[in-house]
Amino acid sequence: MKATVLGAAGYVGGELLRLALGHPELDVVQATSRRHAGRPVGLVHPHLRHHAGLLFTEPDTLEPVDVLFSALPRGELARVHDRITSAARTVVDLGPDFRDPEGPGGAHYVTGLPELYRSALAGATRISVPGCMATAAAVAIRPLAAAGLTRDDAVVDARTGSSGAGAEPSPATHHPERQHAMRIYKATGHRHEREIARLCGVRARMTVTAVPLVRGVQVVAHLRPPRPVARAEVWSAFRDAYADEPFVRLVAHRSGLHRLPDPQFLCGGNFVDLGFDVDDDGLRVVVVAALDNLVKGAAGGAVQSLNVAQGFEERTGLEFPGLHPV
Amino acid sequence: MKATVLGAAGYVGGELLRLALGHPELDVVQATSRRHAGRPVGLVHPHLRHHAGLLFTEPDTLEPVDVLFSALPRGELARVHDRITSAARTVVDLGPDFRDPEGPGGAHYVTGLPELYRSALAGATRISVPGCMATAAAVAIRPLAAAGLTRDDAVVDARTGSSGAGAEPSPATHHPERQHAMRIYKATGHRHEREIARLCGVRARMTVTAVPLVRGVQVVAHLRPPRPVARAEVWSAFRDAYADEPFVRLVAHRSGLHRLPDPQFLCGGNFVDLGFDVDDDGLRVVVVAALDNLVKGAAGGAVQSLNVAQGFEERTGLEFPGLHPV
Amino acid sequence: MKATVLGAAGYVGGELLRLALGHPELDVVQATSRRHAGRPVGLVHPHLRHHAGLLFTEPDTLEPVDVLFSALPRGELARVHDRITSAARTVVDLGPDFRDPEGPGGAHYVTGLPELYRSALAGATRISVPGCMATAAAVAIRPLAAAGLTRDDAVVDARTGSSGAGAEPSPATHHPERQHAMRIYKATGHRHEREIARLCGVRARMTVTAVPLVRGVQVVAHLRPPRPVARAEVWSAFRDAYADEPFVRLVAHRSGLHRLPDPQFLCGGNFVDLGFDVDDDGLRVVVVAALDNLVKGAAGGAVQSLNVAQGFEERTGLEFPGLHPV
Amino acid sequence: MKATVLGAAGYVGGELLRLALGHPELDVVQATSRRHAGRPVGLVHPHLRHHAGLLFTEPDTLEPVDVLFSALPRGELARVHDRITSAARTVVDLGPDFRDPEGPGGAHYVTGLPELYRSALAGATRISVPGCMATAAAVAIRPLAAAGLTRDDAVVDARTGSSGAGAEPSPATHHPERQHAMRIYKATGHRHEREIARLCGVRARMTVTAVPLVRGVQVVAHLRPPRPVARAEVWSAFRDAYADEPFVRLVAHRSGLHRLPDPQFLCGGNFVDLGFDVDDDGLRVVVVAALDNLVKGAAGGAVQSLNVAQGFEERTGLEFPGLHPV
Repeated sequence: MKATVLGAAGYVGGELLRLALGHPELDVVQATSRRHAGRPVGLVHPHLRHHAGLLFTEPDTLEPVDVLFSALPRGELARVHDRITSAARTVVDLGPDFRDPEGPGGAHYVTGLPELYRSALAGATRISVPGCMATAAAVAIRPLAAAGLTRDDAVVDARTGSSGAGAEPSPATHHPERQHAMRIYKATGHRHEREIARLCGVRARMTVTAVPLVRGVQVVAHLRPPRPVARAEVWSAFRDAYADEPFVRLVAHRSGLHRLPDPQFLCGGNFVDLGFDVDDDGLRVVVVAALDNLVKGAAGGAVQSLNVAQGFEERTGLEFPGLHPV
Repeated sequence: MKATVLGAAGYVGGELLRLALGHPELDVVQATSRRHAGRPVGLVHPHLRHHAGLLFTEPDTLEPVDVLFSALPRGELARVHDRITSAARTVVDLGPDFRDPEGPGGAHYVTGLPELYRSALAGATRISVPGCMATAAAVAIRPLAAAGLTRDDAVVDARTGSSGAGAEPSPATHHPERQHAMRIYKATGHRHEREIARLCGVRARMTVTAVPLVRGVQVVAHLRPPRPVARAEVWSAFRDAYADEPFVRLVAHRSGLHRLPDPQFLCGGNFVDLGFDVDDDGLRVVVVAALDNLVKGAAGGAVQSLNVAQGFEERTGLEFPGLHPV
Repeated sequence: MKATVLGAAGYVGGELLRLALGHPELDVVQATSRRHAGRPVGLVHPHLRHHAGLLFTEPDTLEPVDVLFSALPRGELARVHDRITSAARTVVDLGPDFRDPEGPGGAHYVTGLPELYRSALAGATRISVPGCMATAAAVAIRPLAAAGLTRDDAVVDARTGSSGAGAEPSPATHHPERQHAMRIYKATGHRHEREIARLCGVRARMTVTAVPLVRGVQVVAHLRPPRPVARAEVWSAFRDAYADEPFVRLVAHRSGLHRLPDPQFLCGGNFVDLGFDVDDDGLRVVVVAALDNLVKGAAGGAVQSLNVAQGFEERTGLEFPGLHPV
Repeated sequence: MKATVLGAAGYVGGELLRLALGHPELDVVQATSRRHAGRPVGLVHPHLRHHAGLLFTEPDTLEPVDVLFSALPRGELARVHDRITSAARTVVDLGPDFRDPEGPGGAHYVTGLPELYRSALAGATRISVPGCMATAAAVAIRPLAAAGLTRDDAVVDARTGSSGAGAEPSPATHHPERQHAMRIYKATGHRHEREIARLCGVRARMTVTAVPLVRGVQVVAHLRPPRPVARAEVWSAFRDAYADEPFVRLVAHRSGLHRLPDPQFLCGGNFVDLGFDVDDDGLRVVVVAALDNLVKGAAGGAVQSLNVAQGFEERTGLEFPGLHPV
């Protein structure tokens, strides 16, 4: 399939390029960036230096392709949507424009989260990948909500690395201010609360902290079950939901150093690791989910969704497992 | 006052030395370390290199002093307590041995947390400094608990740097495993839960994460008030409690980069920064407290408590405010 | 080819497992670790958690295999070498035991550095991979030495991440001491000086600094040419040597952010990036080489050498390019 | 002395405020920032939050003061110099405008580096503090150059944290690009080469690397003596130069973890640590100097110079020693 990446100079765009260039079914024919048009992609994305012949192009002229990935910022894909869709049979959007099925155009897009929407994704040609924190929270909470193991609200503590803020410098991501930050930049009222509610039917009372990482999202959801629950019930709910998922790993060891999900080991990989613990009185379930915000939370989720939509083996192009140590 | 530091080769011991060496009322006459006896303290604590004449000594022979600070590990001070108390009129313990007033010997010790126990500390000669996470949580929660603004349990999310684990190498603090860790090493059942309950009368449902910092503790307490509360009520409760405290700063800005407490700016200083936010429906109060675990959470808290006990100006020897950037 | 990894619980061992498990020509049949025998490899190497069925085994019983990778510490492979070689047709050693061709057994081993020894590696069944800093320095210096562009000694400044020290905790790698270290642990007399001299015929006056990274080696070689040289001569020497190398990238841009090699973008990948600059008077050439010490400097170099020895396409199993940002 | 800080919202300005607010002989009456005029300094410098009454003011109206510290960017102090000097008896400039004694106005300024210019500083009312890397390099090289232990050029490898680039965000200091950078941003031709030549009479062939730190400069100078030298000769040259210096510590241990200067332990303090090693053949001396670029390399050097100029005890206001661990 011929593929274009729109907004290819950003961090999500760079990861889309990396994954698409290594995907046996995809052939990258265009990578757009208004600012860097004419320069090799490797000048902006040093990990792609060896693709010396691949240059950024202006987004104004689009080659006809089979699939178009968009990593454009909020509002920009919606603005040029008609032109886009005439150039590409399949559109996979990684931005927020079409995430809300009740928003303008949203009804035409399927949620690009195979763990929750696999059957709807089969054959889909319009795919909207959820936000990275919403993905982690939804994977963490939905099976327990579905099993009746939580009341209708949950404290959701989300921790995020700096790459989630994008490639544009700002005071918030200036290195001397950010390297050692534990910055609670949104203690209440985060707009992903609505997305989580939609994906798993639970009110999330979110608090988001920028932590001293570049990549990685970790979500800690504190759920209050309506009655005391046992660990086995929680295991069972997660196993029922995810036992066959190629990219969900259940991690809840009783010993060893790495007993619960930690995003560090997921850098570059498409896994979402999932684990939990239960208070001694059974009245709080702590669920932990971790992922790489640029991969499973963006570019990897997009490729995985495309694989499902096209009927490719779901792991295709997503084999890199992450690193240890890192 | 002549002063001894027991367990002076650890991180808390090193900070006690730094603070005591800079304190105009204290004269350090002994710094003990069995392992390093005979060596200059600067070999272990490079920030004290210029004190070339101060050598570690064996702990077996103690000079008679006015005040003895103990940074010994769990159980060791209790074991030699009689010998200690005959050598020093005042004992300030930074370990856990006498924290529990109902534990052996605990009834003789006053809690070394002036913000909560100032009047009891006046004239005290036995002082036990609480744990760093308990200090942060108690300062955060107690005023709201006292004002009836929380129900009887709270989700307490504590984040801690690596120095809290002490100076002894271990797999958990091996740099390649720890530099990028978001390691939830205690999701439930942390033993500080009891200490917090004692200090502020609320059940803390704690989850503790080791984060990529060396110094610093940040506590995020999610409180559920029994009725919707307004921001002004919370402000009022904190102001009533802490307006005159020299080391508590209220930080809850509506704009700017640093709106809520972040431990990075507190490194080396004795402040505990305190802030909060309230969900739009008034049904969750998010309280954030930050401190340097080795200073306000240990050595600084000890010196501040001694200042109160001895009637010195409370800030004496604790003037260093922290750094920015860091 | 059936493959065994000896010493599979260390960091190099973990990377050998990752690469071998993703290599289409290799089938991992054994991963040894005395300490962790019987446990899944994913408990030690969280990035391999999804290989739930692969357990560490005792090293005392070795399956007959086609290729054995050894990541054993100094001296241990030599000690059991006879037993090893009866169990495996091809041995690839990543330790130091057989690096010196004049040391015991060394004459039977070919240096596992295809950029310098490709023809000797064809068909080889005994391969010894050089040390990570020696690899970077040799790739950097040899073409200029061969072209007569340097006098007989060079200042070689090597910077290394903490993973190079291995998986065993020690005071030097204790996180609070290491996270912000710029620790010159060997200012003179490093034993890689001899290895570099052997690989490129130049006396290296090395200074080694432990820097605040987990992965990565960066070598800055300051060469004094016997006469003023121009940039074009240096370019020419490097192009002649490396233009066709699949894993050497020449990086010496005049503009942009990433003008010279930086190890951060190489994490997990097998590239060695190489660049340079020349003083205005032409009397100093600064050559910079960067690589991932666990991949190109160890496990990746081993797999690349095996690919050459066996006649596989040289990139097989080494396609992951690294990440940006990271 | 009444004191003003010009350019008080930058990082050097913030450290000037911290030091001046803690200096018993200084009374801060004005802190200027055009951008932040009217806001409390603590909004920009969180470590100064407790100075709630100190607000930034416009730089256009200057109070008459005894001493004015300028942390203005290149060219700005020179532009308003006449107005400045009519408002302040003593001017201490931390920018580059008057560093060159042969540049415009430079002849009136004394170099603010007491270790090299103490006698000239006594009574001085115009002081220009050298750049942070030049300070470290000059302290490292000058005694050996004076003793004839080096030839006329030296390889100077300088490593710098991100705070040296100032408080203004840029692509080079965007956290995702900078957190793990080993970025050689100036391999040759750095403009501090001239400043070093002026301060110590040796051509410095500099290479500058941005390393993953916020604070700290470390300089490694590789000197080639004209004949083989012994360690004792080098010790002797440094002792002769610095034995009585309050802020120079000689650090060259044969054992232990911290054998050579490392900037991490100097954060916030005014020390420059200095150490060295010698190749076995005596033909290379490796000198290492470390300091906090914002303190000894800027604000602390300024206060120390003022202390000398005014006849205050040289350590006044500079007692904070740094931290361990950090």
